[in-house]
Amino acid sequence: MGITKEEIVIGYQAIQDEITKDLELLDGKAFFQQELWNREGGGGGKTRIIQDGNILEKGGVNFSAVQGKLPQAIMDAFGVEEENFFATGVSIVIHPNNPWVPIIHMNIRYFELNEQIRWFGGGIDLTPHYVIPEDAKYFHQQVKSTCDNYHHSFYEDFKTKADDYFYIKHRDETRGIGGVFYDKLTPEKTGLTFDQIYRFSCDLGRSFVPIYKELVNRNRHKTFSEQEKEWQFLRRGRYVEFNLVYDSGTRFGLETNGRIESILMSLPAQANWAYNFQPIVGSPEYETLAFLKKGTNWV
Amino acid sequence: MGITKEEIVIGYQAIQDEITKDLELLDGKAFFQQELWNREGGGGGKTRIIQDGNILEKGGVNFSAVQGKLPQAIMDAFGVEEENFFATGVSIVIHPNNPWVPIIHMNIRYFELNEQIRWFGGGIDLTPHYVIPEDAKYFHQQVKSTCDNYHHSFYEDFKTKADDYFYIKHRDETRGIGGVFYDKLTPEKTGLTFDQIYRFSCDLGRSFVPIYKELVNRNRHKTFSEQEKEWQFLRRGRYVEFNLVYDSGTRFGLETNGRIESILMSLPAQANWAYNFQPIVGSPEYETLAFLKKGTNWV
Repeated sequence: MGITKEEIVIGYQAIQDEITKDLELLDGKAFFQQELWNREGGGGGKTRIIQDGNILEKGGVNFSAVQGKLPQAIMDAFGVEEENFFATGVSIVIHPNNPWVPIIHMNIRYFELNEQIRWFGGGIDLTPHYVIPEDAKYFHQQVKSTCDNYHHSFYEDFKTKADDYFYIKHRDETRGIGGVFYDKLTPEKTGLTFDQIYRFSCDLGRSFVPIYKELVNRNRHKTFSEQEKEWQFLRRGRYVEFNLVYDSGTRFGLETNGRIESILMSLPAQANWAYNFQPIVGSPEYETLAFLKKGTNWV
Repeated sequence: MGITKEEIVIGYQAIQDEITKDLELLDGKAFFQQELWNREGGGGGKTRIIQDGNILEKGGVNFSAVQGKLPQAIMDAFGVEEENFFATGVSIVIHPNNPWVPIIHMNIRYFELNEQIRWFGGGIDLTPHYVIPEDAKYFHQQVKSTCDNYHHSFYEDFKTKADDYFYIKHRDETRGIGGVFYDKLTPEKTGLTFDQIYRFSCDLGRSFVPIYKELVNRNRHKTFSEQEKEWQFLRRGRYVEFNLVYDSGTRFGLETNGRIESILMSLPAQANWAYNFQPIVGSPEYETLAFLKKGTNWV
Protein backbone atom coordinates (compact mmCIF):
# COMPACT_ATOMS: atom_id res chain seq x y z
CA MET A 1 0.00 0.00 0.00
CA GLY A 2 2.85 2.40 0.80
CA ILE A 3 2.07 6.06 1.43
CA THR A 4 -1.24 6.68 3.23
CA LYS A 5 -3.74 9.46 2.69
CA GLU A 6 -2.91 10.85 6.14
CA GLU A 7 0.74 11.17 5.13
CA ILE A 8 -0.22 12.82 1.85
CA VAL A 9 -2.38 15.35 3.70
CA ILE A 10 0.56 16.24 5.96
CA GLY A 11 2.97 16.42 3.02
CA TYR A 12 0.71 18.64 0.91
CA GLN A 13 -0.04 20.98 3.80
CA ALA A 14 3.70 21.40 4.35
CA ILE A 15 4.04 22.34 0.68
CA GLN A 16 1.27 24.95 1.04
CA ASP A 17 3.07 26.38 4.09
CA GLU A 18 6.43 26.57 2.32
CA ILE A 19 4.98 28.18 -0.80
CA THR A 20 2.95 30.85 1.01
CA LYS A 21 5.95 31.78 3.19
CA ASP A 22 8.27 31.99 0.17
CA LEU A 23 5.78 34.00 -1.91
CA GLU A 24 5.40 36.55 0.91
CA LEU A 25 9.18 36.92 1.01
CA LEU A 26 9.29 37.31 -2.76
CA ASP A 27 6.53 39.91 -2.77
CA GLY A 28 7.95 41.91 0.13
CA LYS A 29 4.72 43.78 0.82
CA ALA A 30 1.48 41.78 0.94
CA PHE A 31 0.62 38.84 3.18
CA PHE A 32 -1.73 35.93 2.64
CA GLN A 33 -5.04 36.03 4.44
CA GLN A 34 -6.22 32.58 5.47
CA GLU A 35 -9.75 31.27 5.62
CA LEU A 36 -10.52 27.83 7.06
CA TRP A 37 -13.66 26.24 5.71
CA ASN A 38 -15.58 23.03 6.24
CA ARG A 39 -17.42 21.10 3.58
CA GLU A 40 -20.94 20.01 4.41
CA GLY A 41 -20.37 16.49 3.11
CA GLY A 42 -17.03 16.08 4.94
CA GLY A 43 -13.59 17.62 5.15
CA GLY A 44 -12.55 21.18 4.40
CA GLY A 45 -9.68 23.39 3.46
CA LYS A 46 -7.34 26.30 4.03
CA THR A 47 -7.80 29.04 1.46
CA ARG A 48 -4.90 31.52 1.38
CA ILE A 49 -5.27 34.64 -0.73
CA ILE A 50 -2.80 37.43 -1.41
CA GLN A 51 -3.94 40.76 -2.91
CA ASP A 52 -2.43 44.15 -3.82
CA GLY A 53 1.21 43.14 -3.34
CA ASN A 54 4.37 44.64 -4.81
CA ILE A 55 4.59 41.90 -7.41
CA LEU A 56 1.50 39.77 -6.86
CA GLU A 57 -1.75 41.58 -7.66
CA LYS A 58 -4.03 38.68 -6.80
CA GLY A 59 -3.35 35.04 -6.11
CA GLY A 60 -4.31 32.03 -4.08
CA VAL A 61 -2.48 29.05 -2.62
CA ASN A 62 -5.22 26.69 -1.52
CA PHE A 63 -5.13 23.39 0.33
CA SER A 64 -8.12 21.10 0.73
CA ALA A 65 -8.86 17.58 1.94
CA VAL A 66 -12.43 16.51 1.36
CA GLN A 67 -14.33 13.25 1.51
CA GLY A 68 -17.84 11.90 1.24
CA LYS A 69 -20.25 10.33 -1.18
CA LEU A 70 -19.57 10.98 -4.84
CA PRO A 71 -22.51 12.62 -6.70
CA GLN A 72 -24.11 10.28 -9.28
CA ALA A 73 -23.16 12.62 -12.15
CA ILE A 74 -19.48 12.40 -11.21
CA MET A 75 -19.67 8.60 -10.84
CA ASP A 76 -21.09 8.46 -14.36
CA ALA A 77 -18.39 10.78 -15.67
CA PHE A 78 -15.65 8.65 -14.04
CA GLY A 79 -17.37 5.42 -15.12
CA VAL A 80 -17.18 3.99 -11.58
CA GLU A 81 -19.64 2.44 -9.14
CA GLU A 82 -17.67 3.22 -5.98
CA GLU A 83 -19.21 6.03 -4.08
CA ASN A 84 -16.89 6.95 -1.20
CA PHE A 85 -14.25 9.39 -2.26
CA PHE A 86 -11.36 11.22 -0.67
CA ALA A 87 -9.49 14.03 -2.41
CA THR A 88 -6.68 16.29 -1.27
CA GLY A 89 -4.55 18.79 -3.09
CA VAL A 90 -2.77 22.11 -3.35
CA SER A 91 -3.87 24.56 -6.02
CA ILE A 92 -2.19 27.84 -6.99
CA VAL A 93 -2.95 30.68 -9.38
CA ILE A 94 -0.95 33.92 -9.38
CA HIS A 95 -1.82 37.09 -11.32
CA PRO A 96 1.09 39.55 -11.14
CA ASN A 97 0.95 43.34 -11.51
CA ASN A 98 3.60 43.69 -14.19
CA PRO A 99 2.52 42.51 -17.67
CA TRP A 100 6.05 41.19 -18.28
CA VAL A 101 5.72 38.76 -15.38
CA PRO A 102 3.67 35.66 -16.37
CA ILE A 103 0.52 34.26 -14.78
CA ILE A 104 1.30 30.86 -13.26
CA HIS A 105 -0.84 27.91 -12.19
CA MET A 106 0.13 24.78 -10.27
CA ASN A 107 -1.92 21.95 -8.85
CA ILE A 108 -1.07 18.65 -7.16
CA ARG A 109 -3.84 16.34 -6.06
CA TYR A 110 -4.55 12.85 -4.78
CA PHE A 111 -7.82 10.97 -5.22
CA GLU A 112 -9.20 7.80 -3.61
CA LEU A 113 -12.36 5.77 -4.25
CA ASN A 114 -13.56 3.34 -1.56
CA GLU A 115 -10.00 3.29 -0.19
CA GLN A 116 -9.06 0.97 -3.08
CA ILE A 117 -8.81 2.88 -6.32
CA ARG A 118 -6.15 5.57 -5.91
CA TRP A 119 -4.44 7.98 -8.23
CA PHE A 120 -2.47 11.23 -8.44
CA GLY A 121 -3.08 14.18 -10.72
CA GLY A 122 -1.65 17.63 -11.20
CA GLY A 123 0.49 19.89 -13.30
CA ILE A 124 2.11 23.25 -13.68
CA ASP A 125 1.66 25.66 -16.58
CA LEU A 126 2.59 29.19 -17.52
CA THR A 127 0.49 31.95 -19.12
CA PRO A 128 2.73 34.85 -20.11
CA HIS A 129 0.96 38.05 -21.21
CA TYR A 130 3.94 38.42 -23.53
CA VAL A 131 5.69 35.22 -24.55
CA ILE A 132 9.44 35.59 -23.99
CA PRO A 133 11.03 32.56 -25.69
CA GLU A 134 14.02 32.31 -23.27
CA ASP A 135 11.64 32.34 -20.30
CA ALA A 136 9.39 29.75 -21.91
CA LYS A 137 12.44 27.58 -22.58
CA TYR A 138 13.67 27.99 -19.00
CA PHE A 139 10.22 27.06 -17.65
CA HIS A 140 9.91 23.92 -19.76
CA GLN A 141 13.49 22.84 -19.02
CA GLN A 142 12.91 23.09 -15.27
CA VAL A 143 9.67 21.15 -15.47
CA LYS A 144 11.27 18.54 -17.73
CA SER A 145 14.12 18.07 -15.30
CA THR A 146 11.68 17.24 -12.46
CA CYS A 147 9.82 14.83 -14.76
CA ASP A 148 13.04 13.16 -16.00
CA ASN A 149 14.00 12.27 -12.42
CA TYR A 150 11.02 9.91 -12.33
CA HIS A 151 10.23 8.62 -15.81
CA HIS A 152 11.77 9.11 -19.25
CA SER A 153 8.40 9.67 -20.92
CA PHE A 154 6.66 11.83 -18.26
CA TYR A 155 7.65 15.17 -19.74
CA GLU A 156 6.65 14.37 -23.30
CA ASP A 157 3.38 12.69 -22.29
CA PHE A 158 2.35 15.36 -19.81
CA LYS A 159 3.43 18.25 -22.02
CA THR A 160 1.11 16.95 -24.78
CA LYS A 161 -1.70 16.61 -22.23
CA ALA A 162 -1.14 20.20 -21.08
CA ASP A 163 -1.31 21.48 -24.67
CA ASP A 164 -4.61 19.66 -25.14
CA TYR A 165 -6.06 20.67 -21.79
CA PHE A 166 -5.16 24.37 -21.63
CA TYR A 167 -6.80 25.09 -24.97
CA ILE A 168 -9.44 27.77 -25.60
CA LYS A 169 -11.34 25.96 -28.34
CA HIS A 170 -13.57 28.89 -29.34
CA ARG A 171 -10.49 31.09 -29.89
CA ASP A 172 -8.29 28.31 -31.35
CA GLU A 173 -5.62 29.52 -28.88
CA THR A 174 -3.77 27.77 -26.08
CA ARG A 175 -4.17 29.53 -22.73
CA GLY A 176 -0.43 30.10 -22.50
CA ILE A 177 2.75 28.18 -23.29
CA GLY A 178 1.57 25.05 -21.47
CA GLY A 179 3.74 22.98 -19.17
CA VAL A 180 2.74 19.57 -17.84
CA PHE A 181 -0.65 18.11 -16.95
CA TYR A 182 -1.25 14.56 -15.68
CA ASP A 183 -4.21 12.68 -14.24
CA LYS A 184 -5.06 9.21 -12.90
CA LEU A 185 -1.40 8.36 -12.44
CA THR A 186 -1.00 4.88 -10.93
CA PRO A 187 1.74 2.24 -10.50
CA GLU A 188 0.04 0.14 -13.22
CA LYS A 189 0.41 2.93 -15.75
CA THR A 190 3.91 4.05 -14.82
CA GLY A 191 5.85 1.15 -13.32
CA LEU A 192 6.54 3.43 -10.32
CA THR A 193 5.35 2.77 -6.78
CA PHE A 194 2.73 4.98 -5.14
CA ASP A 195 5.51 6.37 -2.96
CA GLN A 196 7.47 7.38 -6.04
CA ILE A 197 4.45 8.99 -7.70
CA TYR A 198 3.77 10.87 -4.47
CA ARG A 199 7.38 12.09 -4.32
CA PHE A 200 7.12 13.18 -7.95
CA SER A 201 4.06 15.29 -7.08
CA CYS A 202 5.91 16.83 -4.11
CA ASP A 203 8.96 17.62 -6.23
CA LEU A 204 6.73 19.27 -8.82
CA GLY A 205 5.02 21.26 -6.05
CA ARG A 206 8.37 22.31 -4.60
CA SER A 207 9.66 23.34 -8.03
CA PHE A 208 7.00 26.07 -8.12
CA VAL A 209 8.75 28.69 -6.01
CA PRO A 210 12.26 28.54 -7.57
CA ILE A 211 10.76 28.59 -11.07
CA TYR A 212 8.39 31.49 -10.42
CA LYS A 213 11.02 33.42 -8.44
CA GLU A 214 13.38 33.22 -11.39
CA LEU A 215 10.71 34.41 -13.85
CA VAL A 216 9.66 37.22 -11.49
CA ASN A 217 13.23 38.40 -10.97
CA ARG A 218 13.97 38.36 -14.69
CA ASN A 219 11.01 40.65 -15.42
CA ARG A 220 9.82 42.51 -12.33
CA HIS A 221 11.77 45.70 -13.02
CA LYS A 222 10.76 46.05 -16.66
CA THR A 223 8.75 49.21 -17.34
CA PHE A 224 5.53 49.02 -19.28
CA SER A 225 3.24 51.37 -21.21
CA GLU A 226 -0.49 51.88 -20.90
CA GLN A 227 -0.96 49.81 -24.08
CA GLU A 228 1.03 46.95 -22.58
CA LYS A 229 -1.10 47.10 -19.43
CA GLU A 230 -4.25 47.02 -21.60
CA TRP A 231 -2.90 43.95 -23.40
CA GLN A 232 -2.40 42.28 -20.01
CA PHE A 233 -6.08 42.95 -19.18
CA LEU A 234 -7.17 41.48 -22.52
CA ARG A 235 -5.04 38.35 -21.95
CA ARG A 236 -6.63 38.02 -18.52
CA GLY A 237 -10.01 38.11 -20.30
CA ARG A 238 -8.92 34.98 -22.15
CA TYR A 239 -7.87 33.43 -18.84
CA VAL A 240 -11.39 34.09 -17.49
CA GLU A 241 -12.92 32.57 -20.62
CA PHE A 242 -10.84 29.40 -20.22
CA ASN A 243 -11.53 28.99 -16.52
CA LEU A 244 -15.28 29.59 -16.68
CA VAL A 245 -15.97 27.73 -19.93
CA TYR A 246 -13.52 24.80 -19.91
CA ASP A 247 -11.57 24.24 -16.70
CA SER A 248 -12.73 20.91 -15.21
CA GLY A 249 -11.77 21.85 -11.66
CA THR A 250 -13.73 25.09 -11.82
CA ARG A 251 -16.79 23.54 -13.42
CA PHE A 252 -16.67 20.54 -11.07
CA GLY A 253 -16.57 22.96 -8.14
CA LEU A 254 -19.44 25.11 -9.45
CA GLU A 255 -21.60 22.06 -10.16
CA THR A 256 -20.99 20.40 -6.80
CA ASN A 257 -21.51 23.47 -4.62
CA GLY A 258 -17.86 23.84 -3.72
CA ARG A 259 -16.64 26.89 -1.79
CA ILE A 260 -17.16 29.49 -4.53
CA GLU A 261 -14.65 32.08 -3.31
CA SER A 262 -11.92 29.42 -3.13
CA ILE A 263 -12.74 28.08 -6.60
CA LEU A 264 -12.94 31.49 -8.23
CA MET A 265 -9.76 32.80 -6.61
CA SER A 266 -8.27 31.93 -10.03
CA LEU A 267 -9.99 34.96 -11.59
CA PRO A 268 -7.90 38.12 -11.95
CA ALA A 269 -8.53 41.43 -10.15
CA GLN A 270 -9.31 43.05 -13.50
CA ALA A 271 -10.00 41.67 -16.98
CA ASN A 272 -10.99 43.54 -20.12
CA TRP A 273 -12.74 42.74 -23.37
CA ALA A 274 -12.48 44.84 -26.55
CA TYR A 275 -14.53 44.01 -29.61
CA ASN A 276 -12.49 42.19 -32.25
CA PHE A 277 -9.11 43.46 -31.03
CA GLN A 278 -6.41 42.68 -33.62
CA PRO A 279 -2.78 43.43 -32.77
CA ILE A 280 -0.65 45.16 -35.40
CA VAL A 281 1.24 42.66 -37.57
CA GLY A 282 4.76 42.21 -36.21
CA SER A 283 4.02 43.80 -32.80
CA PRO A 284 4.98 41.96 -29.57
CA GLU A 285 1.27 41.27 -29.03
CA TYR A 286 1.03 39.74 -32.50
CA GLU A 287 4.14 37.65 -31.86
CA THR A 288 2.63 36.39 -28.61
CA LEU A 289 -0.55 35.21 -30.35
CA ALA A 290 1.59 33.31 -32.85
CA PHE A 291 3.14 31.36 -29.95
CA LEU A 292 -0.23 30.28 -28.53
CA LYS A 293 -0.43 27.06 -30.51
CA LYS A 294 -0.18 23.41 -29.51
CA GLY A 295 2.92 21.35 -30.11
CA THR A 296 5.74 23.91 -29.74
CA ASN A 297 8.97 22.24 -28.63
CA TRP A 298 10.42 24.58 -25.99
CA VAL A 299 13.36 22.50 -24.70
CA MET B 1 -49.25 29.40 -42.39
CA GLY B 2 -49.38 33.18 -42.02
CA ILE B 3 -46.14 35.12 -41.62
CA THR B 4 -43.18 33.71 -43.60
CA LYS B 5 -39.56 33.54 -42.56
CA GLU B 6 -38.68 36.02 -45.30
CA GLU B 7 -41.09 38.54 -43.76
CA ILE B 8 -39.69 37.90 -40.29
CA VAL B 9 -36.15 38.53 -41.56
CA ILE B 10 -37.24 41.85 -43.05
CA GLY B 11 -39.16 42.81 -39.90
CA TYR B 12 -36.30 41.96 -37.53
CA GLN B 13 -33.74 43.78 -39.65
CA ALA B 14 -35.93 46.89 -39.54
CA ILE B 15 -35.98 46.63 -35.74
CA GLN B 16 -32.17 46.40 -35.68
CA ASP B 17 -31.97 49.50 -37.89
CA GLU B 18 -34.36 51.50 -35.72
CA ILE B 19 -32.63 50.54 -32.47
CA THR B 20 -29.10 51.32 -33.65
CA LYS B 21 -30.19 54.70 -35.02
CA ASP B 22 -32.03 55.58 -31.80
CA LEU B 23 -29.17 54.46 -29.55
CA GLU B 24 -26.72 56.62 -31.51
CA LEU B 25 -29.03 59.61 -30.99
CA LEU B 26 -29.32 58.79 -27.29
CA ASP B 27 -25.57 58.45 -26.87
CA GLY B 28 -24.73 61.60 -28.81
CA LYS B 29 -21.07 60.67 -29.35
CA ALA B 30 -20.27 57.15 -30.48
CA PHE B 31 -21.48 55.34 -33.60
CA PHE B 32 -22.02 51.67 -34.27
CA GLN B 33 -19.45 49.89 -36.37
CA GLN B 34 -20.96 47.18 -38.53
CA GLU B 35 -19.47 43.89 -39.55
CA LEU B 36 -21.18 41.60 -42.04
CA TRP B 37 -20.36 37.95 -41.66
CA ASN B 38 -21.26 34.71 -43.39
CA ARG B 39 -21.72 31.38 -41.70
CA GLU B 40 -19.96 28.43 -43.31
CA GLY B 41 -23.05 26.20 -43.06
CA GLY B 42 -25.39 28.89 -44.48
CA GLY B 43 -26.63 32.39 -43.75
CA GLY B 44 -24.91 35.14 -41.81
CA GLY B 45 -25.44 38.30 -39.88
CA LYS B 46 -24.87 41.98 -39.23
CA THR B 47 -22.94 42.62 -36.04
CA ARG B 48 -23.16 46.23 -34.84
CA ILE B 49 -20.97 47.32 -31.95
CA ILE B 50 -20.74 50.63 -30.14
CA GLN B 51 -17.78 51.46 -27.87
CA ASP B 52 -16.53 54.41 -25.80
CA GLY B 53 -19.67 56.50 -26.07
CA ASN B 54 -20.97 59.28 -23.81
CA ILE B 55 -23.41 56.92 -22.15
CA LEU B 56 -22.75 53.53 -23.71
CA GLU B 57 -19.34 52.12 -22.84
CA LYS B 58 -19.74 48.89 -24.84
CA GLY B 59 -22.71 47.32 -26.49
CA GLY B 60 -23.94 45.34 -29.44
CA VAL B 61 -27.12 45.19 -31.48
CA ASN B 62 -26.79 42.08 -33.60
CA PHE B 63 -28.95 40.60 -36.32
CA SER B 64 -28.49 37.14 -37.78
CA ALA B 65 -30.35 34.76 -40.09
CA VAL B 66 -28.71 31.36 -40.35
CA GLN B 67 -29.70 28.00 -41.71
CA GLY B 68 -28.31 24.55 -42.36
CA LYS B 69 -28.06 21.11 -40.86
CA LEU B 70 -28.54 20.89 -37.12
CA PRO B 71 -25.60 19.27 -35.27
CA GLN B 72 -26.50 15.87 -33.76
CA ALA B 73 -25.86 17.15 -30.22
CA ILE B 74 -28.43 19.92 -30.68
CA MET B 75 -30.98 17.50 -32.22
CA ASP B 76 -30.56 15.32 -29.12
CA ALA B 77 -30.95 18.32 -26.82
CA PHE B 78 -34.13 19.41 -28.64
CA GLY B 79 -35.38 15.82 -28.85
CA VAL B 80 -36.05 16.12 -32.59
CA GLU B 81 -35.16 14.15 -35.70
CA GLU B 82 -35.53 17.02 -38.15
CA GLU B 83 -32.24 18.24 -39.33
CA ASN B 84 -32.80 21.37 -41.42
CA PHE B 85 -33.02 24.48 -39.30
CA PHE B 86 -33.50 28.17 -39.86
CA ALA B 87 -33.02 30.76 -37.13
CA THR B 88 -33.18 34.54 -37.16
CA GLY B 89 -33.11 37.10 -34.40
CA VAL B 90 -31.99 40.38 -32.92
CA SER B 91 -29.83 40.34 -29.80
CA ILE B 92 -28.77 43.33 -27.68
CA VAL B 93 -26.52 43.85 -24.67
CA ILE B 94 -25.58 47.34 -23.42
CA HIS B 95 -22.97 48.12 -20.75
CA PRO B 96 -23.20 51.82 -19.81
CA ASN B 97 -20.43 54.01 -18.32
CA ASN B 98 -22.36 55.32 -15.34
CA PRO B 99 -22.92 52.74 -12.55
CA TRP B 100 -26.37 54.27 -11.90
CA VAL B 101 -27.49 53.35 -15.42
CA PRO B 102 -28.42 49.65 -15.70
CA ILE B 103 -27.06 46.97 -18.02
CA ILE B 104 -29.83 45.84 -20.39
CA HIS B 105 -30.34 42.77 -22.57
CA MET B 106 -32.98 42.07 -25.19
CA ASN B 107 -33.42 39.24 -27.65
CA ILE B 108 -36.13 38.27 -30.12
CA ARG B 109 -35.73 35.15 -32.24
CA TYR B 110 -37.56 32.82 -34.58
CA PHE B 111 -36.72 29.18 -35.18
CA GLU B 112 -37.81 26.66 -37.83
CA LEU B 113 -37.17 22.94 -38.29
CA ASN B 114 -37.71 21.35 -41.72
CA GLU B 115 -40.03 24.29 -42.53
CA GLN B 116 -42.71 22.62 -40.38
CA ILE B 117 -41.95 23.02 -36.70
CA ARG B 118 -41.81 26.75 -35.92
CA TRP B 119 -41.57 28.79 -32.77
CA PHE B 120 -40.63 32.18 -31.36
CA GLY B 121 -38.41 32.93 -28.38
CA GLY B 122 -36.98 35.99 -26.70
CA GLY B 123 -37.13 38.32 -23.76
CA ILE B 124 -35.87 41.48 -22.16
CA ASP B 125 -34.23 41.81 -18.76
CA LEU B 126 -32.46 44.43 -16.68
CA THR B 127 -29.26 44.18 -14.62
CA PRO B 128 -28.86 47.32 -12.51
CA HIS B 129 -25.50 47.75 -10.75
CA TYR B 130 -27.59 49.43 -8.05
CA VAL B 131 -31.21 48.33 -7.83
CA ILE B 132 -33.46 51.43 -7.75
CA PRO B 133 -36.94 50.15 -6.85
CA GLU B 134 -38.85 52.85 -8.80
CA ASP B 135 -36.80 52.07 -11.92
CA ALA B 136 -37.32 48.33 -11.46
CA LYS B 137 -41.06 48.94 -11.10
CA TYR B 138 -41.13 51.15 -14.19
CA PHE B 139 -39.24 48.50 -16.20
CA HIS B 140 -41.56 45.67 -15.20
CA GLN B 141 -44.69 47.77 -15.75
CA GLN B 142 -43.62 48.64 -19.29
CA VAL B 143 -42.80 45.03 -20.11
CA LYS B 144 -46.06 43.84 -18.57
CA SER B 145 -48.04 46.32 -20.61
CA THR B 146 -46.59 44.90 -23.87
CA CYS B 147 -47.34 41.36 -22.67
CA ASP B 148 -50.88 42.22 -21.58
CA ASN B 149 -51.72 43.43 -25.08
CA TYR B 150 -51.35 39.85 -26.27
CA HIS B 151 -52.20 37.42 -23.49
CA HIS B 152 -53.33 37.79 -19.88
CA SER B 153 -50.85 35.21 -18.59
CA PHE B 154 -47.78 36.16 -20.68
CA TYR B 155 -46.26 38.52 -18.13
CA GLU B 156 -46.62 36.22 -15.15
CA ASP B 157 -45.42 33.14 -17.05
CA PHE B 158 -42.49 34.83 -18.73
CA LYS B 159 -41.47 36.76 -15.60
CA THR B 160 -41.15 33.46 -13.71
CA LYS B 161 -39.15 32.00 -16.59
CA ALA B 162 -36.79 35.02 -16.52
CA ASP B 163 -36.24 34.63 -12.75
CA ASP B 164 -35.34 30.97 -13.30
CA TYR B 165 -33.18 31.58 -16.35
CA PHE B 166 -31.14 34.61 -15.26
CA TYR B 167 -29.95 32.89 -12.12
CA ILE B 168 -26.31 32.50 -11.06
CA LYS B 169 -26.65 29.18 -9.27
CA HIS B 170 -23.16 29.12 -7.73
CA ARG B 171 -23.78 32.56 -6.16
CA ASP B 172 -27.46 31.95 -5.33
CA GLU B 173 -28.10 35.35 -6.94
CA THR B 174 -30.25 36.41 -9.87
CA ARG B 175 -28.27 38.25 -12.56
CA GLY B 176 -30.40 41.34 -12.09
CA ILE B 177 -34.07 42.17 -11.53
CA GLY B 178 -35.24 39.90 -14.34
CA GLY B 179 -37.91 40.83 -16.84
CA VAL B 180 -39.48 38.37 -19.27
CA PHE B 181 -38.08 35.28 -21.01
CA TYR B 182 -40.02 32.98 -23.34
CA ASP B 183 -39.15 30.12 -25.65
CA LYS B 184 -40.87 27.73 -28.08
CA LEU B 185 -43.94 29.94 -28.30
CA THR B 186 -46.50 28.48 -30.73
CA PRO B 187 -50.21 28.90 -31.54
CA GLU B 188 -50.89 25.53 -29.83
CA LYS B 189 -49.50 26.82 -26.55
CA THR B 190 -50.97 30.31 -26.63
CA GLY B 191 -54.19 30.31 -28.66
CA LEU B 192 -52.63 33.13 -30.72
CA THR B 193 -51.84 32.94 -34.43
CA PHE B 194 -48.23 32.94 -35.65
CA ASP B 195 -48.87 36.48 -36.93
CA GLN B 196 -49.90 37.59 -33.46
CA ILE B 197 -46.88 35.95 -31.80
CA TYR B 198 -44.65 37.62 -34.38
CA ARG B 199 -46.24 41.01 -33.68
CA PHE B 200 -45.77 40.43 -29.95
CA SER B 201 -42.03 39.84 -30.54
CA CYS B 202 -41.81 43.01 -32.65
CA ASP B 203 -43.63 45.06 -30.00
CA LEU B 204 -41.26 43.73 -27.35
CA GLY B 205 -38.30 44.60 -29.58
CA ARG B 206 -39.66 48.08 -30.21
CA SER B 207 -40.25 48.65 -26.48
CA PHE B 208 -36.49 48.43 -25.92
CA VAL B 209 -35.54 51.99 -26.90
CA PRO B 210 -38.26 53.92 -25.01
CA ILE B 211 -37.66 51.83 -21.87
CA TYR B 212 -33.88 52.18 -21.93
CA LYS B 213 -34.04 55.86 -22.89
CA GLU B 214 -36.20 56.55 -19.83
CA LEU B 215 -33.83 54.64 -17.52
CA VAL B 216 -30.79 56.37 -19.03
CA ASN B 217 -32.33 59.83 -18.69
CA ARG B 218 -33.35 59.22 -15.10
CA ASN B 219 -29.76 58.32 -14.11
CA ARG B 220 -27.22 59.58 -16.63
CA HIS B 221 -26.36 62.78 -14.76
CA LYS B 222 -25.89 61.17 -11.35
CA THR B 223 -22.35 61.53 -10.03
CA PHE B 224 -20.52 58.52 -8.68
CA SER B 225 -17.53 57.78 -6.47
CA GLU B 226 -14.56 55.51 -7.09
CA GLN B 227 -16.14 52.92 -4.77
CA GLU B 228 -19.36 53.00 -6.78
CA LYS B 229 -17.37 52.50 -9.98
CA GLU B 230 -15.54 49.57 -8.37
CA TRP B 231 -18.91 48.06 -7.41
CA GLN B 232 -20.00 48.36 -11.05
CA PHE B 233 -16.90 46.40 -12.11
CA LEU B 234 -17.63 43.69 -9.55
CA ARG B 235 -21.26 43.41 -10.75
CA ARG B 236 -19.94 43.09 -14.30
CA GLY B 237 -17.80 40.21 -13.03
CA ARG B 238 -21.04 38.45 -12.09
CA TYR B 239 -22.43 39.22 -15.54
CA VAL B 240 -19.37 37.53 -17.08
CA GLU B 241 -19.83 34.53 -14.78
CA PHE B 242 -23.47 34.14 -15.84
CA ASN B 243 -22.79 34.50 -19.55
CA LEU B 244 -19.81 32.14 -19.72
CA VAL B 245 -21.10 29.50 -17.29
CA TYR B 246 -24.87 29.40 -17.87
CA ASP B 247 -26.19 31.41 -20.82
CA SER B 248 -27.58 28.94 -23.40
CA GLY B 249 -27.09 31.28 -26.33
CA THR B 250 -23.45 31.88 -25.47
CA ARG B 251 -22.68 28.23 -24.80
CA PHE B 252 -24.59 27.14 -27.93
CA GLY B 253 -22.53 29.61 -29.95
CA LEU B 254 -19.21 28.51 -28.45
CA GLU B 255 -19.99 24.83 -29.00
CA THR B 256 -21.16 25.23 -32.59
CA ASN B 257 -18.32 27.45 -33.79
CA GLY B 258 -20.43 30.56 -34.03
CA ARG B 259 -18.83 33.93 -34.77
CA ILE B 260 -16.98 34.39 -31.48
CA GLU B 261 -16.69 38.19 -31.52
CA SER B 262 -20.45 38.51 -32.12
CA ILE B 263 -21.30 36.03 -29.36
CA LEU B 264 -18.93 37.56 -26.83
CA MET B 265 -19.97 41.15 -27.53
CA SER B 266 -22.07 40.65 -24.38
CA LEU B 267 -18.92 40.84 -22.21
CA PRO B 268 -18.15 44.24 -20.65
CA ALA B 269 -15.11 46.40 -21.44
CA GLN B 270 -13.85 45.86 -17.89
CA ALA B 271 -14.84 43.46 -15.11
CA ASN B 272 -13.22 42.99 -11.70
CA TRP B 273 -13.02 40.25 -9.10
CA ALA B 274 -12.11 40.79 -5.44
CA TYR B 275 -11.72 37.88 -3.06
CA ASN B 276 -14.77 37.40 -0.85
CA PHE B 277 -16.02 40.99 -1.17
CA GLN B 278 -18.76 41.66 1.39
CA PRO B 279 -20.60 44.99 1.29
CA ILE B 280 -21.18 46.81 4.58
CA VAL B 281 -24.53 45.95 6.12
CA GLY B 282 -27.11 48.59 5.16
CA SER B 283 -24.99 50.08 2.32
CA PRO B 284 -26.56 50.59 -1.15
CA GLU B 285 -24.43 47.66 -2.35
CA TYR B 286 -25.81 45.50 0.44
CA GLU B 287 -29.37 46.56 -0.41
CA THR B 288 -28.81 45.67 -4.04
CA LEU B 289 -27.70 42.13 -3.17
CA ALA B 290 -30.84 41.71 -1.09
CA PHE B 291 -32.92 42.46 -4.22
CA LEU B 292 -31.20 39.79 -6.33
CA LYS B 293 -33.64 37.03 -5.46
CA LYS B 294 -36.27 35.20 -7.48
CA GLY B 295 -39.95 35.94 -7.12
CA THR B 296 -40.01 39.67 -6.33
CA ASN B 297 -43.28 41.27 -7.46
CA TRP B 298 -42.27 44.58 -9.06
CA VAL B 299 -45.59 45.75 -10.50
